[in-house]
Amino acid sequence: MTDGHARQLFNPRSIALVGATDKSRWSWNTFANLQLHGFAGPVYLVNPRGIPVHGQHSYARIADLPSGVDLAFVMVPTAAVLGVLGEVADHGIPSVVLLTSGFAEVGDTGAELERQVTDLARRRGLTILGPNGNGYINATAGITPYGLPIDNPLRSGPVGVVLQSGALASSVLNFAQSRNVGVSLLVSMGNESMMSMTDVMRYLIDDDATRAIALFIESVRRPVEFLALARESLVKGKPIVAIKVGRSRVGARVAKSHTGSMVGDDAVVDAVFRQNGVIRVDSLEDLIITAGLLAESGPLPGPRFGFITASGGASEIIADRAEDEGIEIPEFAPETVERLRRVVPPFAAIQNPVDVTGYVLIKRDLLRNALMAAHDDPSLDALVLVSDLPRAEPPDPAAIIELYRQSSAVLRGSAKPVIVMGNSLTDITAFGRDVARQTGYPGVLGGIHHGLTALGRAVRWSGLHRDALHSVAPAVPAPRAELELPDQMESSWPEHRAGRFLAAHGIPVVPSALVTGPEQAVRSAEALGYPVVVKLAADEIVHKSDIGGVKVGLRNAGEVLAAYCDVVSAGYDAGADVHGALVQPQRTGGIELLIGIVTDPAWGKVLAVGLGGAWVEILNDTALSVLPVDRSQVLQSLRSLRGARLFDGPRGTEKADLDAVADMIASVAGLAQRLGDRLDALEINPLLVKGSQVEALDALITWRHGA
Amino acid sequence: MTDGHARQLFNPRSIALVGATDKSRWSWNTFANLQLHGFAGPVYLVNPRGIPVHGQHSYARIADLPSGVDLAFVMVPTAAVLGVLGEVADHGIPSVVLLTSGFAEVGDTGAELERQVTDLARRRGLTILGPNGNGYINATAGITPYGLPIDNPLRSGPVGVVLQSGALASSVLNFAQSRNVGVSLLVSMGNESMMSMTDVMRYLIDDDATRAIALFIESVRRPVEFLALARESLVKGKPIVAIKVGRSRVGARVAKSHTGSMVGDDAVVDAVFRQNGVIRVDSLEDLIITAGLLAESGPLPGPRFGFITASGGASEIIADRAEDEGIEIPEFAPETVERLRRVVPPFAAIQNPVDVTGYVLIKRDLLRNALMAAHDDPSLDALVLVSDLPRAEPPDPAAIIELYRQSSAVLRGSAKPVIVMGNSLTDITAFGRDVARQTGYPGVLGGIHHGLTALGRAVRWSGLHRDALHSVAPAVPAPRAELELPDQMESSWPEHRAGRFLAAHGIPVVPSALVTGPEQAVRSAEALGYPVVVKLAADEIVHKSDIGGVKVGLRNAGEVLAAYCDVVSAGYDAGADVHGALVQPQRTGGIELLIGIVTDPAWGKVLAVGLGGAWVEILNDTALSVLPVDRSQVLQSLRSLRGARLFDGPRGTEKADLDAVADMIASVAGLAQRLGDRLDALEINPLLVKGSQVEALDALITWRHGA
Repeated sequence: MTDGHARQLFNPRSIALVGATDKSRWSWNTFANLQLHGFAGPVYLVNPRGIPVHGQHSYARIADLPSGVDLAFVMVPTAAVLGVLGEVADHGIPSVVLLTSGFAEVGDTGAELERQVTDLARRRGLTILGPNGNGYINATAGITPYGLPIDNPLRSGPVGVVLQSGALASSVLNFAQSRNVGVSLLVSMGNESMMSMTDVMRYLIDDDATRAIALFIESVRRPVEFLALARESLVKGKPIVAIKVGRSRVGARVAKSHTGSMVGDDAVVDAVFRQNGVIRVDSLEDLIITAGLLAESGPLPGPRFGFITASGGASEIIADRAEDEGIEIPEFAPETVERLRRVVPPFAAIQNPVDVTGYVLIKRDLLRNALMAAHDDPSLDALVLVSDLPRAEPPDPAAIIELYRQSSAVLRGSAKPVIVMGNSLTDITAFGRDVARQTGYPGVLGGIHHGLTALGRAVRWSGLHRDALHSVAPAVPAPRAELELPDQMESSWPEHRAGRFLAAHGIPVVPSALVTGPEQAVRSAEALGYPVVVKLAADEIVHKSDIGGVKVGLRNAGEVLAAYCDVVSAGYDAGADVHGALVQPQRTGGIELLIGIVTDPAWGKVLAVGLGGAWVEILNDTALSVLPVDRSQVLQSLRSLRGARLFDGPRGTEKADLDAVADMIASVAGLAQRLGDRLDALEINPLLVKGSQVEALDALITWRHGA
Repeated sequence: MTDGHARQLFNPRSIALVGATDKSRWSWNTFANLQLHGFAGPVYLVNPRGIPVHGQHSYARIADLPSGVDLAFVMVPTAAVLGVLGEVADHGIPSVVLLTSGFAEVGDTGAELERQVTDLARRRGLTILGPNGNGYINATAGITPYGLPIDNPLRSGPVGVVLQSGALASSVLNFAQSRNVGVSLLVSMGNESMMSMTDVMRYLIDDDATRAIALFIESVRRPVEFLALARESLVKGKPIVAIKVGRSRVGARVAKSHTGSMVGDDAVVDAVFRQNGVIRVDSLEDLIITAGLLAESGPLPGPRFGFITASGGASEIIADRAEDEGIEIPEFAPETVERLRRVVPPFAAIQNPVDVTGYVLIKRDLLRNALMAAHDDPSLDALVLVSDLPRAEPPDPAAIIELYRQSSAVLRGSAKPVIVMGNSLTDITAFGRDVARQTGYPGVLGGIHHGLTALGRAVRWSGLHRDALHSVAPAVPAPRAELELPDQMESSWPEHRAGRFLAAHGIPVVPSALVTGPEQAVRSAEALGYPVVVKLAADEIVHKSDIGGVKVGLRNAGEVLAAYCDVVSAGYDAGADVHGALVQPQRTGGIELLIGIVTDPAWGKVLAVGLGGAWVEILNDTALSVLPVDRSQVLQSLRSLRGARLFDGPRGTEKADLDAVADMIASVAGLAQRLGDRLDALEINPLLVKGSQVEALDALITWRHGA
């Protein structure tokens, strides 16, 4: 699907409603929408009986239509769809919105029918949106082939909306309308038989009328395209805000390794979005409020905000919420305090957030004056004016319109971004909309709660955007021929093979001797130096310690002899393919980490970094990133752990050399990528960190069969 | 202040506006509010010039007023307040709303003036609300002496609102109106010079029109009263929902012990609220939505909900948010699946949440029928119907009103609670309100996001309410004469004294010998058995290990000798008052906890339970409760820790006997209470837990001077 196909589908000059009938609410809705929301071209109705429909002439057959119809909006019964599409193609109509349901969403028979539809469309050069969607609303162009009612007023504006849910499309549109947030294009995707979410994203990224993109995602069907588009949009400065449902654990995969069991699909989605600047929200309200903010403000210069309010209570809620969302509220410079003192009443406390007090009722320009007084403070990146649009029309609207006109001039003339935020989330009323329209007043964030969420996400996104302008994505290392890969039939390598493999590829691994008898174990222990650890070396045993296959703190030959016999017989008892035992020097102290790589079916290789040893199960303190990653991303992951203070050397322990740790983890990630599809999972647990010494103490690699 | 005073103040039959003038917006607002919102009694205006005000006759002096005026609404300049209050008292008017500001909120001079006002009021038997508030809105009785504009329509209803913020009162009221949530009484407290938040809570708990209480709290000025009222309201089944601002860490106190530094005031507020059933929220939206829900639903029978929607997307958001909020969505029983199959279209997937599909557009009673089909499922405690009230009035409103009337009958006739929830948070429009009023339709929760927050809090509160009906609060142990208390001048007891004190009061403490010379240390070590620990015994040294005052793992006489000398000289180097050293057997393995008791200035003694040792600083994993606590509350705290899985004996470690741990901690808490005001703080860190063996390994007690 090329961008040209989407442009054609979303910008028809004439539309045929195929299956139009007075008996269908969808038909009525679509027809009314096209009449009411400004579609300038002809709308043709096709009804097999050729009787008047919606008070207008109808055509009995598609073949009877005038030529040059750009879009067929098809709502015929499921069984008639294939035939109708053939006629659509015969008549030279290039684009189809297919409203009809009964396809892949109802099971195998429907899926087969959907395949036939797609085949026909490909063969005949049709572009199809749907089936099983509601159509779309191109508010920019006033083209609204959409099967559900659209409330008035439909405001066109900068937010493009793509939804993988039909019924919610109307809720999202209603909410946007209630907040006076204008949409450019809203698309209800349906089954994505041909046109996919990524195709619409492509269109919106190129569309000049769209300045922010809002997505409702059930599943990302084309992850590679999605990532490329997300990256492109981030660099371009066009924010993507998304709800991705399925956060709950139900879908989390069960895997062999600890890493696997911790990595729910959703945590990977989180990591993918974070790494690529997709702003994740978890409510319809935040979706629209955040997209609406960024569409209007563009990238914000930084996290330091000055807040101007007329309420101490609001100031306090703002301070609390700002801390939640990473928004900074710096103290004012002395000059700013002086300037504010000249503006606010003598009993007002002069601090950030500014509370100009209820005196604003008397002196209506107080908020605006305080804003100007604080504006030039060098510690502020941006300002927020806490104020709602008027709700009810007063007897004399001229005075209030003049007040808002003056404020608008100040806000629009400001050198720093100034964002207006309401106190609570209520509709912008018809009068409020009218005031905003007449005075050019900016958008108003929907209340302190959602407003601060939006500000926090917007600031974070702005930083990622700036970084993306100057950074190159980590290169993907090419698979290398010289890598020693396992036999086709092998499924996993336990420690004695995984450790050797890692060491051979430059990863520091604890010295280790594979021994096949007790005397050899003792000789190795003496060569390595006491105390030592003796571990079972056997295939099929993933968690050696669970079956008594690990003995630690061995201080002499006798203890090593006994330990060798114990671990080997534990292996035989467990029915394992025993190769002998590993002897290793015992390490003490330091911090134990877990480094895991797993393969996500959608997003590919995922790196998990967390506290290791016993704590991994207790605290579940893990940071994920999708490969490729560079050293600085690994450093970020390490610093984001709840237990990160361990690295600073608390209570006299040794401070960890995080640069060395990040280098080592980045090497592991690079190796995992070079191994390509053959690698299923790789886990180092624990990875011991003592100062700048970093060493894998245990490892496990799982392979996929012949890729 | 008795409840009678509040009843009198909030239910006047006649009101005098003192300081009424056409030049004051507050005067206009108050006068208009009384005219527009149904006040039936006479409103007298007092203006010193005796000229017509607001188009009505005014009185020049209070003395000129008719007798029998119930309330003076005073908005004269600050300097005139004392004189006016004297005249109010002279005229026999019992209650005053004092709008004027310029009192304690502006500094010392104002505070002095406020004291004079309070003195006068006490002397003359006046009851004052304010100063520096906006007044109140008694919507139940249609009495609205309130200085800011009240938008139409003011709906009376079951939510009582108390705010320690003036300006936010209007935002809260606006929001409640936008959601069609009716208020009983809304009070803007002002400076609480006489009438306090707790006085209004008392009134609302007794008020039959009020079924839920919503609070905006800046600070709880009367914690003891607040707790008693919270408890009473919980038992009575009248929920209290509160925003308490000041969550951010700014105000956290710095204290000597770790416990102190971790216990921000706000974490204590959290614990107080949780223990006493006060539902904490952090937005104005959640405040009103949650209070509105509980006011209508009353206590909910349990956490298991069936959801009926017309949208797969909504179902998915609900599933995600339900997990966040502790709402369970059980699978349906086979009979329910059968019943639903007969109702929903054949292509609908039958599961919980139910998505009846967009077919609801055709078959308008589909949602209702699905609700009835799922209603009797034995796994459900309650149901949620996801549906919005209509927004715009259609050409033929009768049909839609009939539809809602039928639904209302079903919802109101249900044996289980059925809650209606909208898709997103928009206003209930005038037409929607009208439909609800005409059809007796229940309240609609404001969108999935805030709706699930409200449901989660409501379910949790309902459980606490049921528990409170059957439980008795833990008894407060009386201070006992036989307790050995420290000298008046002592400020803290380090380990060697604190440990002895705890052991003397039945708390298990590791065996310990206080020795004053190296040979004595060796003899003690041999008596206790190697390996041992040697610790500095000195006053003024709180963190012994930081100065090298602790030596562990000592295995023979030589090591003990050296250790003794090391720790004692470290003590002298640090300038401490050295008493010698403690010798203790070395313990290994087990789980280390921290048990701390600190004194909060508002809420009294607070128990902190958390993971101990080095982890306390790293993870900050601590649960707080305010004393008194019983064993079951301590158990809850232990189980709420992030690291609680440690207690289950992971990786072959010994399972902890939590009953034994809770017993021991409850004993410590009981001892702390018996020590009363003399105790400032007590910390056991670590408390070692190995199976059922529980033992304090180190302790510190801080005393307050002569209480």
